Amino acid sequence: MTNKINIRKELSTIKEHWSQRTIGEANGQLFKLAKGVGETHWHKHDDQDELFIIYKGHMTIQLRDKNIELYEDEMFIVAKGVEHCPKAESEVEFLIVGLNITSNEAGGKPNI
Amino acid sequence: MTNKINIRKELSTIKEHWSQRTIGEANGQLFKLAKGVGETHWHKHDDQDELFIIYKGHMTIQLRDKNIELYEDEMFIVAKGVEHCPKAESEVEFLIVGLNITSNEAGGKPNI
Repeated sequence: MTNKINIRKELSTIKEHWSQRTIGEANGQLFKLAKGVGETHWHKHDDQDELFIIYKGHMTIQLRDKNIELYEDEMFIVAKGVEHCPKAESEVEFLIVGLNITSNEAGGKPNI
Repeated sequence: MTNKINIRKELSTIKEHWSQRTIGEANGQLFKLAKGVGETHWHKHDDQDELFIIYKGHMTIQLRDKNIELYEDEMFIVAKGVEHCPKAESEVEFLIVGLNITSNEAGGKPNI
């Protein structure tokens, strides 16, 4: 990336839910933006940690033993191999960092 | 990291300038917070890209061929090997992502 990216402006142009848009790559990590509403399904990533930072709204990251309630400016890392199921009662906007695009069925994207 | 981190609250507790505080690690990357004011010195990282996201204020990332003016919610990646010299006329708060702690003299930290 040779230009700067305004994260909130970029988020405002995303229309689809639970689809990640890559905005940059550093040291093999993809920095991706997404919006979501509703519930994904339970899944895990055996190859990578997945880091979330909320930009707008509220997301619940359901883990098998607890729920992580994430609000604006809050960050959480789902370690590799840990089952999780993100959900949002109303639209949430977030940054997600990981090795590749995980907004597919194996990555918890719901079939809508 | 098994707990969430509130990035803005964590930033509010940082007192020293140009010193990075690690708040999480994912896939070998450190997610670090820092504040800065004034000018660092010219340096480069041959081993890693360095990603900046501004949380408060304004930072100029001076490159040899241009200046990148970064404001709140803006992201920029300094590619490995690229000389840069961040500066801020007033205090700036930011997230920085890379392989290790670079707030040392080799990483541009000014001797104050």
